[in-house]
Amino acid sequence: MKFIKTPVKGMCDMLPSDMRLREHVLGMIKKTYGTYGFMQIETPVMEHIENLTSKQGGDNEKLIFKVMKRGAELTRALESGSGELADNGLRYDLTVPLARYYANNKEKLPTPFKAMQLGSVWRADNPQKGRFRQFTQCDIDILGDDSSLAEIELITATSSMLTQIFSEIGITDFTVHINDRQILSAVALQAGFAEEEIGSVLISLDKFDKIGLDGIEKDLLANGYDAGMVERYLAVYRAVREGISIEEFCRSIGEEYLPARVVENLSEIIACVRPMLADGVKIVFDPTLVRGMGYYTGPIFEVTMDGYNFAIAGGGRYDKMIGKFSGQNVSASGFSIGFERIVTILKDHMKDSHKIGEGATAYLIGNRVSKERKTEVLATARQLREDGTVVTVLPMSKNMRHQIELLEAEGFTKFEKVFE
Amino acid sequence: MKFIKTPVKGMCDMLPSDMRLREHVLGMIKKTYGTYGFMQIETPVMEHIENLTSKQGGDNEKLIFKVMKRGAELTRALESGSGELADNGLRYDLTVPLARYYANNKEKLPTPFKAMQLGSVWRADNPQKGRFRQFTQCDIDILGDDSSLAEIELITATSSMLTQIFSEIGITDFTVHINDRQILSAVALQAGFAEEEIGSVLISLDKFDKIGLDGIEKDLLANGYDAGMVERYLAVYRAVREGISIEEFCRSIGEEYLPARVVENLSEIIACVRPMLADGVKIVFDPTLVRGMGYYTGPIFEVTMDGYNFAIAGGGRYDKMIGKFSGQNVSASGFSIGFERIVTILKDHMKDSHKIGEGATAYLIGNRVSKERKTEVLATARQLREDGTVVTVLPMSKNMRHQIELLEAEGFTKFEKVFE
Repeated sequence: MKFIKTPVKGMCDMLPSDMRLREHVLGMIKKTYGTYGFMQIETPVMEHIENLTSKQGGDNEKLIFKVMKRGAELTRALESGSGELADNGLRYDLTVPLARYYANNKEKLPTPFKAMQLGSVWRADNPQKGRFRQFTQCDIDILGDDSSLAEIELITATSSMLTQIFSEIGITDFTVHINDRQILSAVALQAGFAEEEIGSVLISLDKFDKIGLDGIEKDLLANGYDAGMVERYLAVYRAVREGISIEEFCRSIGEEYLPARVVENLSEIIACVRPMLADGVKIVFDPTLVRGMGYYTGPIFEVTMDGYNFAIAGGGRYDKMIGKFSGQNVSASGFSIGFERIVTILKDHMKDSHKIGEGATAYLIGNRVSKERKTEVLATARQLREDGTVVTVLPMSKNMRHQIELLEAEGFTKFEKVFE
Repeated sequence: MKFIKTPVKGMCDMLPSDMRLREHVLGMIKKTYGTYGFMQIETPVMEHIENLTSKQGGDNEKLIFKVMKRGAELTRALESGSGELADNGLRYDLTVPLARYYANNKEKLPTPFKAMQLGSVWRADNPQKGRFRQFTQCDIDILGDDSSLAEIELITATSSMLTQIFSEIGITDFTVHINDRQILSAVALQAGFAEEEIGSVLISLDKFDKIGLDGIEKDLLANGYDAGMVERYLAVYRAVREGISIEEFCRSIGEEYLPARVVENLSEIIACVRPMLADGVKIVFDPTLVRGMGYYTGPIFEVTMDGYNFAIAGGGRYDKMIGKFSGQNVSASGFSIGFERIVTILKDHMKDSHKIGEGATAYLIGNRVSKERKTEVLATARQLREDGTVVTVLPMSKNMRHQIELLEAEGFTKFEKVFE
């Protein structure tokens, strides 16, 4: 019999110290989002393969862990030689399940509905440092609200939550970047790009942080776009000065490309969010923010921290996506925080692993102790436990020093040796 | 494009009220077990197919959701026509992953190690009322402790946790049944059954609650066992009077079948646990308790409640199982609570669904409200949220009455309408 003691490739065993840190962070997330009225929901980890491969998931659809049919259905699929062998798959994100969930349960839910989901997702990606094949996602979404209040609540709640988490390790500064897909489109259209070219142009603009405007210029020219058009397009971004306001940036864009309400909407989001932010947190209009996913339709936003070259949270409005899934249009806006990234940053900044709370006590019981004496110890332990102290009662090991060292590493600080 | 809005067969979408109840119960479990020094761990939901099909999982191995190989490996397996198509499977319990986890991480863990696992498991069983294909298990296990302290801690912690959970709905009475596999074997051996017949005899005895001793007699005779032997065997159980002590029951069993230390060990567990139990909770020696799984080697126990014909928690010692998996012998004892059953009982006894905490407030914002007024509302909301009150800020729906009804159903009690 072959027994493999390591976890499945790209997946992790969580040690007790890992779990204490993760549970602590999840607790703060649930609590903060909870006070903002987001309601926790949960969907099965498995989804119908049809839902997962409906072309809304982009490249993630290539990374699905498929679950095989069973019994007679599997036999039939194998015999036919061409049948689909999988009937289900593990979800690769929490958005597809949310779309299905909302279609299935809409009548029982408040409207607008503020959903909070914390759960694992799976992608058969090449594992790398910090990238796993099973990882936790934390999403909040507001469904059925087409107003700026949705983005205001999403961004305020997430900023408040991040401030709380990071202030524990002394980090209070981060930046919320915000833009709007409609502004991005308008600039491209006004420069002369066709509607169907916008996707490709934005893929280039999305590389701004890595290659700058000159790099984007080369990229666009290499893609065969007209040099004059590319120049007109990039001139808008070259004119951007730090701290530029939305109104200033959009002044040069004609009303035929950009309705005034788009600018007003984004401006209102910033105006309402700004006074809610803690000291050290900024919200800035960022005209080159693109965010990869093609399904965004309105405001998009992400959070960055000095010293880290990735966003720790990101999201946006995706008014058309749920309709494409369920056939019923529902306006939607969401924010997803990079839970694994946040945990990594916290670990980087912690001197030591996350330990059991103060006063944790271990009773080490010698092997000749009578049951009467054990009963006394257990009664004392019960009292301490009822007061909330962590108490463990264990048989004393032959190598007691090593036993105590390992318990100390978890956070036990008091050791009572009971010999009789 | 086909879109299926219901969850995968046998699995559930959790509504906000479901999640509030589940999170509440999980919180009590984590807290109580935590104060007993059990440390939360987590393993990936996927395990190597080799580990899941190693014959330790009994019938559950027939119910595995298998995860298909991907890319070139899948192509090879399909082309060969005989290859295994799955490389992984979803775990059907938390014990197989625990065995693998312990083999993989033993050096980093305290010894004995007190593990707590809360997680989903999957079985492709026929769904019925109360039986799902994805469900939550809550297990505690003590690894590396061959003394009675393991059972004492497992039973005391679980009783304390159940008392806490059920007292909220006014139930304070339940019973811990305890027995020992070695006593069960000794009675059978002394009656004349052969070692290899014990498994089959215990399958009959396990039906005691359903068919009684007369039914068991018919069952054993139908299996072809000698009538005299069956009579000798059942005479031991026919002599049992309510409240019989272990010593009394075992007096008639010869030392050659039952070493005295087995009786002393079980007796010590009961003596040490009894004074720790809350009012209404009993621990009783139950000579006909079998517990299905073949892997138990010592004390076995389960918890029942009046009015429910199933155990709400069960467990026992399984000293040989981890060794069979990992090749390294580790004594082990565990207790698994039926989380879904407990949630079902709580729901049965609750007049209403589990609601958001007191004072939850909804601000409903009319569509002509200025951003200045919104900012004021958001500032008030922030203050309340910081004090821990749940506050939601939503656009007012056209059908405000319906909107308020749905929010009331979740537990919102205060509604502030903001028109300007």
